[in-house]
Amino acid sequence: MSALTVGVDLGGTNTRAGLVTDTGEIVARFRCPTRPDLGSDRVISGIATCVRQVIREAGGAEVRGVGVGAPGPLDPFNGVIISPENMPCMHGVRLKDRLESSLEMPVAVDNDANLAAFGEQWQGAGRKAPHFLCVTLGTGVGGGWVCNGELMHGFNGNAAEVGHITIDWNGPRCPCGNRGCLELYVSATAMVRRTRERMENESPRTVLTADGLTTRAIFEAAEAGDAFARAMFEETGTLLGIGLVSLVSVTNVEVVALCGGLARAGERLFAPVRRTFKERGTVGVKERVQILAGTLGDDAGILGAAKLAIGA
Amino acid sequence: MSALTVGVDLGGTNTRAGLVTDTGEIVARFRCPTRPDLGSDRVISGIATCVRQVIREAGGAEVRGVGVGAPGPLDPFNGVIISPENMPCMHGVRLKDRLESSLEMPVAVDNDANLAAFGEQWQGAGRKAPHFLCVTLGTGVGGGWVCNGELMHGFNGNAAEVGHITIDWNGPRCPCGNRGCLELYVSATAMVRRTRERMENESPRTVLTADGLTTRAIFEAAEAGDAFARAMFEETGTLLGIGLVSLVSVTNVEVVALCGGLARAGERLFAPVRRTFKERGTVGVKERVQILAGTLGDDAGILGAAKLAIGA
Repeated sequence: MSALTVGVDLGGTNTRAGLVTDTGEIVARFRCPTRPDLGSDRVISGIATCVRQVIREAGGAEVRGVGVGAPGPLDPFNGVIISPENMPCMHGVRLKDRLESSLEMPVAVDNDANLAAFGEQWQGAGRKAPHFLCVTLGTGVGGGWVCNGELMHGFNGNAAEVGHITIDWNGPRCPCGNRGCLELYVSATAMVRRTRERMENESPRTVLTADGLTTRAIFEAAEAGDAFARAMFEETGTLLGIGLVSLVSVTNVEVVALCGGLARAGERLFAPVRRTFKERGTVGVKERVQILAGTLGDDAGILGAAKLAIGA
Repeated sequence: MSALTVGVDLGGTNTRAGLVTDTGEIVARFRCPTRPDLGSDRVISGIATCVRQVIREAGGAEVRGVGVGAPGPLDPFNGVIISPENMPCMHGVRLKDRLESSLEMPVAVDNDANLAAFGEQWQGAGRKAPHFLCVTLGTGVGGGWVCNGELMHGFNGNAAEVGHITIDWNGPRCPCGNRGCLELYVSATAMVRRTRERMENESPRTVLTADGLTTRAIFEAAEAGDAFARAMFEETGTLLGIGLVSLVSVTNVEVVALCGGLARAGERLFAPVRRTFKERGTVGVKERVQILAGTLGDDAGILGAAKLAIGA
C-alpha cells in the first residue's frame, strides 16, 4: 500500500474527510455536520474527529499529514482563517496550529476553491494539463489555478479570484466593491436572479414560475423546449465564455474545468461557452484550449487537500 | 568582475545589445538599425554584430550566453518567432537556433514585453516584489508577469496578454477578435484616437488640434490647465485602473509597474489609476498593492534579456 494522507473539506454544512493514497484513491471516508453555530472549538474538534476516524481505517500504515480546504478568505501560508461569510465563529482562527496541536501531525490549510482545482488537476479534468484553471459556479464564482503543476497563490493568497474580474466596467455594483464582476452574471445565484428579473420585467412566455426558482428548474424547462429558459442558458454561457477569454489571456492555461451544480447542465451551458470562446479568444491559443466539465464532484476538494498534504 | 551575459532588445527600428554583469549593471552597449525590409538574414546578422561588439568590451572575461527580446507572438520554449506585425520577414524564423549557430554560445529568446517585465522585476520598479506585473502602454498594451521570481509563460507562451482582457463585453471589436479589450481604451494609440473622436463629435473647448495629435500634446495641454485634456487623462486612468483590478484579481501581484511613453505622464495618469484601484479593488489586497512607474526605460528589455540568459 502506498503512503497515505488525509484530505478534509470543511464546508458550511458538513465536514468531510478522506484517507487518500499517493496515487489518488480515497480508501476511507468520514463525515460529520459542521456546527459553526456552536463555535470554533466545536468546528475544530469536528475536523479532528473526522481525521481520526479515517486514520483508524489506515490499519497502522503511516499517515504523513493532513490537508484542509476551508472557506476563504484565508491565509494559506500560515493556515489562518480570515473572514468567511458562512462561518463567523472561525474568523481569525489559526486553524493549522490548532489542528497540529490536536492531531500531532503536519497540517496544511488552503481555500476550498484552490483545493478543488488542485484535486481536479491531480485526478480529474486537468490530469493531463499542467496549466489548468478550475471555475466553480455556485452561490458565487470561485476559482483555483494550477501553473506548471503548482497551485498558484500570489503574494497574499488571493490569486485566481476569477469571479471578480470585470466584464462590464459600467455594470452593477458587486458586494466586493467592484462593478460588473463576472460573478454577477454567471453564478448559479446570479442566473436565478437574472431569470426572475427578466420574468418580472418582460413577462416572457415560459413554464417557469418566479417562486422557488432554481437553475435546475431552468434547466428542465430548457430541456423540455422552453425558449425563454433556453435563452437564459445561452446568455449565461455566452457571458461565461467572455469571462474565460479574459482569464485565459492572463493565465494561458490549456484546460479550463467548470464545476458546481450549474456545470451539470452539460451542453446547454457548454455549447454557448465554447462557441463564445472560439469567437473571441486569441488566435494561436483558442484552438488548443479545452473547456471541460469537472469530473470529481465533491471528491475534488478532498483529493486536492490530500495532494496539498503530500506536497507540504 | 562578476560573470557576464548579453541582453538584446530587437525592436522594429533598432537592435540594441548590452553587456550585463550578474549584478545587473550594463557595462557596454551597442546598437544598429534593424532592417526588417532587407530580410531575416540581415536582421539576424544585425543581432550577431551587436552581440559581438559588446562582447569585445568584455576584455576576455567569460560571456555565458545571450538573451534576446523580440516582438511577439513567438514561441519562447523553442525560440521561434511566429508572426510579429512589424517584422513580416521574421515569421517562422528559428531565432534561437540561428543565433546559436552564428554565435556559438547559448541563446534564449522571449517576447519583449515579458523581458521588459523581467528587467523591471530584477533591477527596477519590482525589485522588492517577487509577484510583479508590468503593463506597457504604447501602440498596444503589453504585459509581462513575474510570479515568485519566475517569468510566467503558461502552456504556450501567451500568459499576461493583459491588453486583451475585456472591460466591456459589449464594447467595440478589437483586431484580436475579442470585444471591449483594455487595449482599445488605454494604449497611447487608443487615447489619441478616443481624444480625436471626442473632439470631432463633441467639439469641446480645448487648445488641442486633431491634426498630429499625440499623448504628449494632450499631456502638455492638461498641464497648462486644459479641462478637456485633463478629462481625457482622468478617463484613461480610470479605465486602466479598472483593468488593473481584474488583472490583480487573477494574478495577486503586489506591485504593478506602468511603462511606456504614456506612463511618463506621472500623476496626471497615476492619480486616477490609483484612485480607481482603491475604489474597486478587493479588500485585503488593494491596501497592499503598489502601482508604480517603471524605472528602467529602454534598459528594461536589455536587462530582462540578460537575466533570461543567466537563468537559461
